[in-house]
Amino acid sequence: MLKVLRLGHRRERDKRITTHVALAARALGSDEFILTGEEDEKLLDNVRDVVDRFGGSFTIKYSESWEETVKKFKQGKGKVIHLTMYGERIQDLEKKIKKIENALIIVGGEKVPGKAYELADYNIAVTNQPHSEVSALAIFLDRYHNGEELGFEFQGGNIEIEPSESGKEVRKK
Amino acid sequence: MLKVLRLGHRRERDKRITTHVALAARALGSDEFILTGEEDEKLLDNVRDVVDRFGGSFTIKYSESWEETVKKFKQGKGKVIHLTMYGERIQDLEKKIKKIENALIIVGGEKVPGKAYELADYNIAVTNQPHSEVSALAIFLDRYHNGEELGFEFQGGNIEIEPSESGKEVRKK
Repeated sequence: MLKVLRLGHRRERDKRITTHVALAARALGSDEFILTGEEDEKLLDNVRDVVDRFGGSFTIKYSESWEETVKKFKQGKGKVIHLTMYGERIQDLEKKIKKIENALIIVGGEKVPGKAYELADYNIAVTNQPHSEVSALAIFLDRYHNGEELGFEFQGGNIEIEPSESGKEVRKK
Repeated sequence: MLKVLRLGHRRERDKRITTHVALAARALGSDEFILTGEEDEKLLDNVRDVVDRFGGSFTIKYSESWEETVKKFKQGKGKVIHLTMYGERIQDLEKKIKKIENALIIVGGEKVPGKAYELADYNIAVTNQPHSEVSALAIFLDRYHNGEELGFEFQGGNIEIEPSESGKEVRKK
């Protein structure tokens, strides 16, 4: 079970990046997306709409307190993984990470509270260069799943894209 | 030599996503970023600023015509790779891709002209699910480089992040 928690969402500034984080979380094999920061029903509805159309059992929530959500998660057996460019190199932790069955992955925004570093069992960097929470999450998930997520099937929904050499093939399910 | 071309940038709507595409291109081992669509000096300057601070020889350009840029590139020996959720599965093309030495990677926006599919030597999907051009580019580059890009060194610049278990370690170069 993999959950992805987005820290400190700001409705106006972050709407597209946060949407991309949520969609990448879904497409690349996580089970739940938790929005924190400003509430944003429209954004959550857009992501729910993708789930309705493309299938899968991805769930989407809002939490008023990221800290409470993380602390509650830590009472169980799961590990909290914070993706940050300041963290340890993912290539050094890859073996350890793959053994974790339940993880809450914290994906930061522009200002991450120090508490997130403290609460995390692992602070992990996908390169120590600045890039994007979306690309960091993508590579993290691809490695966590050994690339198998690229072949995951999404049950339900009503449309499906057929791989195509040169055009768009959309099939009704 | 890997170049990343961003299609159809819109200054207001896309500024953050396009910035993330450019930074992911840099951090994950490409050599050049070409912006097309609306001109956006501010965005390009922000990315140049990251190069100045964090190093590396990444170059950043604007092109008025994506089509001319792609056609010109095709006169050389390189291949044009268009990342799209409608394309062929990356896992099926991975071996072929890794043999390509020079590639122009087209990264779409919300509306991709049909011509992009035609001009591309490969239309490649990182899953046929909707997610993000940033995550698609990240996984593409990670696979192209066999993960080695995570260890790339960036020469020059004046700061460097040291991997850390629990905090932020910024070192002056």
